[in-house]
Amino acid sequence: MTGKTLAEKILAEKSGTDARAGDYVEAAVDVMMAHDVTGPLAFQTFREVTGDDAELFAPERTVLTIDHHAPADGVRAANNHNSVRGFAEEFGAVQYEVGDGICHQVLVEDGFVAPGDLVIGADSHSTTFGGVGAFGTGVGSTDLGTAFATGELWFRVPETKRFEVGGDLQDGVYAKDLILKFIGDVGFAGATYDAVEFGGEAIQALPIHERIVLSNMTIEMGGKAGLVEPDGRVARFLAAGNGDVRAAEVATGLGPDADAEYDARFTYEGSEIDPQVSKPSNPENAVPVTEVAGTAIDQLFVGTCTNGRYEDIKIVADILEGERLHPDVRMVVVPASKAVYRKALEAGVLGTLVDAGAIFQTAGCGPCFGTHSGVLGDGDVCLATANRNFPGREGSMESRVYLASPATVGASALYGEITDPRTVETRRYDDYRVAEEVSS
Amino acid sequence: MTGKTLAEKILAEKSGTDARAGDYVEAAVDVMMAHDVTGPLAFQTFREVTGDDAELFAPERTVLTIDHHAPADGVRAANNHNSVRGFAEEFGAVQYEVGDGICHQVLVEDGFVAPGDLVIGADSHSTTFGGVGAFGTGVGSTDLGTAFATGELWFRVPETKRFEVGGDLQDGVYAKDLILKFIGDVGFAGATYDAVEFGGEAIQALPIHERIVLSNMTIEMGGKAGLVEPDGRVARFLAAGNGDVRAAEVATGLGPDADAEYDARFTYEGSEIDPQVSKPSNPENAVPVTEVAGTAIDQLFVGTCTNGRYEDIKIVADILEGERLHPDVRMVVVPASKAVYRKALEAGVLGTLVDAGAIFQTAGCGPCFGTHSGVLGDGDVCLATANRNFPGREGSMESRVYLASPATVGASALYGEITDPRTVETRRYDDYRVAEEVSS
Repeated sequence: MTGKTLAEKILAEKSGTDARAGDYVEAAVDVMMAHDVTGPLAFQTFREVTGDDAELFAPERTVLTIDHHAPADGVRAANNHNSVRGFAEEFGAVQYEVGDGICHQVLVEDGFVAPGDLVIGADSHSTTFGGVGAFGTGVGSTDLGTAFATGELWFRVPETKRFEVGGDLQDGVYAKDLILKFIGDVGFAGATYDAVEFGGEAIQALPIHERIVLSNMTIEMGGKAGLVEPDGRVARFLAAGNGDVRAAEVATGLGPDADAEYDARFTYEGSEIDPQVSKPSNPENAVPVTEVAGTAIDQLFVGTCTNGRYEDIKIVADILEGERLHPDVRMVVVPASKAVYRKALEAGVLGTLVDAGAIFQTAGCGPCFGTHSGVLGDGDVCLATANRNFPGREGSMESRVYLASPATVGASALYGEITDPRTVETRRYDDYRVAEEVSS
Repeated sequence: MTGKTLAEKILAEKSGTDARAGDYVEAAVDVMMAHDVTGPLAFQTFREVTGDDAELFAPERTVLTIDHHAPADGVRAANNHNSVRGFAEEFGAVQYEVGDGICHQVLVEDGFVAPGDLVIGADSHSTTFGGVGAFGTGVGSTDLGTAFATGELWFRVPETKRFEVGGDLQDGVYAKDLILKFIGDVGFAGATYDAVEFGGEAIQALPIHERIVLSNMTIEMGGKAGLVEPDGRVARFLAAGNGDVRAAEVATGLGPDADAEYDARFTYEGSEIDPQVSKPSNPENAVPVTEVAGTAIDQLFVGTCTNGRYEDIKIVADILEGERLHPDVRMVVVPASKAVYRKALEAGVLGTLVDAGAIFQTAGCGPCFGTHSGVLGDGDVCLATANRNFPGREGSMESRVYLASPATVGASALYGEITDPRTVETRRYDDYRVAEEVSS
């Protein structure tokens, strides 16, 4: 018998079976999450399957957020918010409010998710949790509503594809560039239903907020989950967090067996990866930034569950400190959580960005999916730290969205056109790595 | 011949006629304003009346703002924003961006409006400018588009109604309480097409940001304009402002003649006016706060062109400092301008409110008219510092909005129900008055 991948190990543990790729298993779920868009249908399913004696299997691990249309951008959104509030109150689920932040971010910040966990969320970017070594995956609202009652869900154990990056990254190159490059190389359906493992020297050197970016965008290549092996860095990260709900039991050293079987392996040399930009209108359209440098931009968007963390926003602020946005561009900044908002406020980052001409919004998903908070009009061109750039994603079907790292967005804000961040003097990447080690 | 009211004096000066109530005059307009909702139709009219040789009569006094759906809450809004940007660039009009603030506020802050001016805006709350002694009035987009080309507009000189308040106001009573009381007394159509003059000892003692509240809500009794006699306080206010576009020529002492003829006079004793709340769903439903105290609230809204100034937000922050919102309520704060935002940021007011649990949004109109930024759902009850509470104004037709002063909103935020601000220890009203005298 060969060894196991990280995904197989977690599903084996949670199902009490051998859990090999291709097996169907019934697995115990650690955390169940829904938000203001997907919650109401999950609530309906839950009520249908439970009837009069409705009880949540684990209310303290059932988490509801109000993040997608927050603050409410219409009556339907407002009614959905009230549906979330009402359900949480009736059944004792954990509930976050408008402005508390994006589901994926608050679950990580507040210690709901630990290495080795199995986490399901009624949101496709639930792969995010792989950044701290959990098997996180998106499910439909009806699957979720059933799991609310039973605490478990069936899975087909996925095959695993492994991406390895050796050596060191260039200054100005971030996890966002890596994941755009990976998606570009395999295509937007290149890892459909696969677990994806990220490893190698350059990836193990990434701070947690960067690892999360890899896992978050794994869904953009079709992945079922995207896992970075959890190490001591995860333990320190979780210990330093806000976790007051569930003590993080940190399984450091949880990783794939040396003889695990992979569906495919992709290996890269870190120094050879340039900053990437995904052109309209698919994340797989990744090219080196040099190929699109000079493209005129109307709007810049910094935020989302992909790149709305403090470190992301600070990279942009460091570039813009004492400067003004290029007069032809506008910038919308939306922190991923209230904790990020407050940190940006206290550190002066919010002020720096507002002084530069940006608007700084309430924590949440912002204009990521085109319903409010900076929607694009016909012909508008946006450069975003977001995860998707499908036609109409941020507004008009006649708008165009390019995806890039915060550093590329910050550099481009200065010049009003897509700009290689390596050409702008920025605070070095290593500074962030050092800062995290010290603070945790 | 009897003397003239303030409105007659201004229209006489601007028309070069005797301008008595009932006369029709063609008057030169000092400032012309439109925003992202009303601008596009005005631009169309302007193009139609001017043809190929289109030129603005006074580009430096033609001001366009992006405030109503800012940041863009839909593709149509985004396209309207681009229409504003395109027109401003083509014809050299003054243009404000998303996050710069509400039209009425930025025109006052930036010195576009001076005592004795005639100001038209394609927005009903253009009466606001009476707070600094200008005849400000709302006009339709087509009238405005024509004035863009000609620099003048016809007016029927209005009759004037005068509201006088003698003596001193109680602590906890603000201009908002006065204007709600006045509207309640005369009804929402009680001053239709009238100019309204505000005078008397208690009103002359009001700082400018408070006078503006009276003028702003004059439209809620149907008024054509709402004027407070300009005095030295206005001069100091304008001198201390951001005015970099037009030097404010301050006509201190501009006032009605002693023997002016009024359509009606209403006199009040300041100490007898209690804090007011306008019940759903008309501003004229004003009652003393004691009559509705205890009414449960879901959302609190601090902002708008009525009460979104720094002093308003600071009153709320002073009440909430070190406290948390009552757990049953949410609070949306939207500053009236970027200058207000930055002052709130620098003074720690933004941080106080966020720490208390509020969300603090980009400057603009916010949820005032129910399209984004905190829309109300079915059954939601809101207490707002806004100017209108008609059915569905802030969202669902099944929601209800109460109007009140920032002090009443702040006090109610602590208890989750409408609360008399006189029962909460707050920073005294006089402190604000003193602060203004010192700073200007």
